[in-house]
Amino acid sequence: MKEIKERIYTAGLIVIGNEILSGRTEDRNISYVAISLNRSGIRLNEVRVIPDVEDEIVFAVNHFRENFDYVFTTGGIGPTHDDITTQSIAKAFGVKNVLNQEAYNILLEYYGSREKINESRVRMAYAPDGSELIYNSVSKAPGFKIGNVFILAGVPKIMKAMLDAIIPTLDSGKPLKSVEVDAGIPEGTIASDLSNIQKKYREIEIGSYPYYDNNKAGTVLVLRSTDNEALQKARNEVELLIKRFT
Amino acid sequence: MKEIKERIYTAGLIVIGNEILSGRTEDRNISYVAISLNRSGIRLNEVRVIPDVEDEIVFAVNHFRENFDYVFTTGGIGPTHDDITTQSIAKAFGVKNVLNQEAYNILLEYYGSREKINESRVRMAYAPDGSELIYNSVSKAPGFKIGNVFILAGVPKIMKAMLDAIIPTLDSGKPLKSVEVDAGIPEGTIASDLSNIQKKYREIEIGSYPYYDNNKAGTVLVLRSTDNEALQKARNEVELLIKRFT
Repeated sequence: MKEIKERIYTAGLIVIGNEILSGRTEDRNISYVAISLNRSGIRLNEVRVIPDVEDEIVFAVNHFRENFDYVFTTGGIGPTHDDITTQSIAKAFGVKNVLNQEAYNILLEYYGSREKINESRVRMAYAPDGSELIYNSVSKAPGFKIGNVFILAGVPKIMKAMLDAIIPTLDSGKPLKSVEVDAGIPEGTIASDLSNIQKKYREIEIGSYPYYDNNKAGTVLVLRSTDNEALQKARNEVELLIKRFT
Repeated sequence: MKEIKERIYTAGLIVIGNEILSGRTEDRNISYVAISLNRSGIRLNEVRVIPDVEDEIVFAVNHFRENFDYVFTTGGIGPTHDDITTQSIAKAFGVKNVLNQEAYNILLEYYGSREKINESRVRMAYAPDGSELIYNSVSKAPGFKIGNVFILAGVPKIMKAMLDAIIPTLDSGKPLKSVEVDAGIPEGTIASDLSNIQKKYREIEIGSYPYYDNNKAGTVLVLRSTDNEALQKARNEVELLIKRFT
């Protein structure tokens, strides 16, 4: 049962994928994970994109699982030689990568016979000893949860189905609310006054994002906080500030 | 002058951006940097997306600059309070963040007077002591290079202009060539034979990327190597393998 608490819950995402680092594939998972977590009151504190290399996976997983409440990995849980995520995470936890009987039964039902689950596909039923299953409504082969680490597929459609199933089960804090104000002026014009507003509202995180529209410089200001009342007050001050320059 | 060498040149990318971690903005820089570097014979080994927090920037920059030939950062070099990249990188190098006279002169020419470069905009002329400038043809405010770290803007259009200017100046290795074969069958079917091909061609990196097209499972196989002859041989073997199952 989901429990909403006052403290801030944090998460890290590890994208395991040579295909992202080579530029062959444009990542489509980071943004979905970021939006889903933040909406649910969990802050995504860091993302790492690392290659399909065991030592790299072990290092990143161990760093993240000690520093964040939740760790999500995407990619590397298929049947081919380059799918080494579960064995690497088993190593990170210092446990064996073992046949998970429930995962095996799911594959057996899906493929129909022990022969059709060949020696490669059976690898998809292996997981760090002690893992629980994350069900996959798209292609059946499950993800796994061990400790605070959630091992998800890399294919966006499957990753999304798994994440959507997990999030309602997680403890989380108050969601950050955000408001955006489009100041049609360069950020340098308002930077000093904006900094004063930031100093006044320490519970709010004010981000300033410049853009160029037909070579005209503008700025979007994003205010984020769990405190809705403070957010509205700060928004008013930001809007008054912009009016002074437009 | 660009020099092409036998050894592998590596790079790391640090995306500094609360807006990516909150899901407010979808990253558009990772893929561009990945493609540009790989095409130029530099391997992107890791990407980190971290928040606008000094300690996080210092930690990531120091880890990367010791482990990779080149480090690129994007974001956080504007005039507002949340732009803390140059001061953080100065701290990482143990040097002062100082006014760069050449950068200041560029801003002076652009804004037209010392008054219009207000106290916020002048921050864009501060850089770690000893930095060289990276020119910005889009919005003038430059990026900076210190040691093996290249400090780039976060706005994609500006980031691209800066990166395009830098890459021809870097030493690099032989570019990785890649070939793709679309096997219209599930990866589990060919995984075992594919693994044997991978074992035979150690100089080639074979990636297997499943996809789902109208709920039909398929696989794209990507072969990458600096050795073009081996690449063509392996491609032939992969194509013969697929024919056996189609």
